[in-house]
Amino acid sequence: MESVVFKPIGVLHTPFRQREGTPRQAAGAQAYTAVLEVFEDYQEGLKDVEGFSHLVVLFYLHRVERADLIACPPWDDKPHGVFATCSPFRPNPIGVSVVRLEKREGRFLTIRGVDMLDGSPVLDIKPYVPDLYPRENVLVGWMTGKVSGMTGSRTGEK
Amino acid sequence: MESVVFKPIGVLHTPFRQREGTPRQAAGAQAYTAVLEVFEDYQEGLKDVEGFSHLVVLFYLHRVERADLIACPPWDDKPHGVFATCSPFRPNPIGVSVVRLEKREGRFLTIRGVDMLDGSPVLDIKPYVPDLYPRENVLVGWMTGKVSGMTGSRTGEK
Repeated sequence: MESVVFKPIGVLHTPFRQREGTPRQAAGAQAYTAVLEVFEDYQEGLKDVEGFSHLVVLFYLHRVERADLIACPPWDDKPHGVFATCSPFRPNPIGVSVVRLEKREGRFLTIRGVDMLDGSPVLDIKPYVPDLYPRENVLVGWMTGKVSGMTGSRTGEK
Repeated sequence: MESVVFKPIGVLHTPFRQREGTPRQAAGAQAYTAVLEVFEDYQEGLKDVEGFSHLVVLFYLHRVERADLIACPPWDDKPHGVFATCSPFRPNPIGVSVVRLEKREGRFLTIRGVDMLDGSPVLDIKPYVPDLYPRENVLVGWMTGKVSGMTGSRTGEK
């Protein structure tokens, strides 16, 4: 298969116009809200989302202009393969964020936990079901003991 | 933005050649293993993934031939908006599965927890970091009390 083509179903309106200062992870960005606008053609697909407190948002990291295979996270001192990191500079820059759904007004969702740049195209929205995510016997390799540094940091900061 | 184009970084070799009988969720498919083949051009990006016990795999649901805005899950009796369901028949059919990494041999990853059809193109691999997924005060709307039905079921079964 040569390539896969997707058409955005919506767009994110967030407080972050530039990469510097944008939180690196939704889990570390609970202070920020954004509006996820679903385009009119897809509004019907939102039926019953308001019953969920959290949603998984897949979005296109539209400002990423290069793909690295090796990434050097600013909160670590060693290079790692990009697939072992959360670096946005990856071959297919798709963000996956678990956000809190604060409010739905028609096709506009107010969400909390925002690590997305303003204008990011939305590819998909899925219900967040915690039972689908393992909690025990999980090893996080080189990130062991460093996750709090990741969730708290912003781009441009060490 | 009109459309977004991605190029697969790998392909999944799984026991499931047809939709019928394929587990619906990775969490309910722990009995099955598969091989995730990363293409040679991207092998360098795998450095250090072997330290992680679980990975998040983004893949293209390449056999999905229609997009519905309303879905009727077989383990519920009411229709819901597709964005409030895990139906594969969605506008941008991207699967997100948390799998267990059993073994890495070069660019071949043996993974456990397989709900993917054979031949599914892989779009991205991310480290699974449980701290990024909320556990408390989560509401799952119409799925309340029904999640065990979802994780245990297979396509073609009620």
